Amino acid sequence: MKPSKIDSLIELLARLPGIGPRSARRIALNLLKKPDSLMRPLAKALVEAADQIKKCEICGNIDTVSPCNLCEDNRRDQSIIVVIEEVGDLWALERAAVHKGLYHVLGGSLSAIDGVGPDDLGINQLIERANKDSTEEVVLAMNATIDGQTTAYYITDQLSECNVKISRLARGVPVGGELDYMDDGTLMEALESRQPF
Amino acid sequence: MKPSKIDSLIELLARLPGIGPRSARRIALNLLKKPDSLMRPLAKALVEAADQIKKCEICGNIDTVSPCNLCEDNRRDQSIIVVIEEVGDLWALERAAVHKGLYHVLGGSLSAIDGVGPDDLGINQLIERANKDSTEEVVLAMNATIDGQTTAYYITDQLSECNVKISRLARGVPVGGELDYMDDGTLMEALESRQPF
Repeated sequence: MKPSKIDSLIELLARLPGIGPRSARRIALNLLKKPDSLMRPLAKALVEAADQIKKCEICGNIDTVSPCNLCEDNRRDQSIIVVIEEVGDLWALERAAVHKGLYHVLGGSLSAIDGVGPDDLGINQLIERANKDSTEEVVLAMNATIDGQTTAYYITDQLSECNVKISRLARGVPVGGELDYMDDGTLMEALESRQPF
Repeated sequence: MKPSKIDSLIELLARLPGIGPRSARRIALNLLKKPDSLMRPLAKALVEAADQIKKCEICGNIDTVSPCNLCEDNRRDQSIIVVIEEVGDLWALERAAVHKGLYHVLGGSLSAIDGVGPDDLGINQLIERANKDSTEEVVLAMNATIDGQTTAYYITDQLSECNVKISRLARGVPVGGELDYMDDGTLMEALESRQPF
């Protein structure tokens, strides 16, 4: 009853993360009300991004050039590499503007359930980079999840031969956090790593 | 820092209903991982739908042809027209397969706040259709919201000169509904319109 063109659009929209069949229908109807102001520009943006965005051969970031603009930026501190799981994590750190060094995007975390092994992540490239003379410190900034921390332990193990300092992000109560809502693990870490006031 | 191609994609995605900047970033990253299996097909589906989908000149439904397949289907009961606000409502009724007659899609509801007046909705076309000899009944199936019901009253008023039966959807406890969770208005309507058991 629905024209098949709309059905196939809805089917594709429903494959986007966080969008179910109902949201996909809603989005499709909304798009069809704005064919020229939203639908065609979105199609164009999708094709352009698909054409022009590539993965940086050095750090795994995505950009229109490879090596990416971050790797090519000589003003950045070349001695410190922050290792993150996904490009979104890199964006989060750049938004916060707290890191002036380099990045290394793994492209995921080790996960037995999802079948992600060491070879699927950019760990060999990381070891290569860690062995470079300019590299002094590798900061493991994986998510504080089981998979993220398993990955961090694995990388620590792999980097043990390299002559670099290995560190990880601090754990504790997040800014704005209320103790009553924190889990036991966070409270334990926060108390153990308490700081002089 | 993010390439501008990605930024403009995210900006467009964030304009879709129910998608904020964070979901838009997540969707963009997910898309960039699947350029050929999802990104390009989605762009193609968008362009095809924008090119081929039009509004039915009779009922306001969307289809690849105008008049739409529902209006052209002679097996459907030509004597009864169900008036709904949006195409999504038509899809919901068709999914339920409870109506074998015609539809009339208003394209919204009267809303002083959103500046939607009678001229913005397909009310004149509805009056024209109600005046046709074949039309016997108009069912007002607007949402049970303030705007929807205001629209229903307005249409009832406009149709008063036409020689058609005007009805509205029944109100009451939805199937699967629990009394404890119903609002007072629903309980009142359900009790007043009680049915022999």
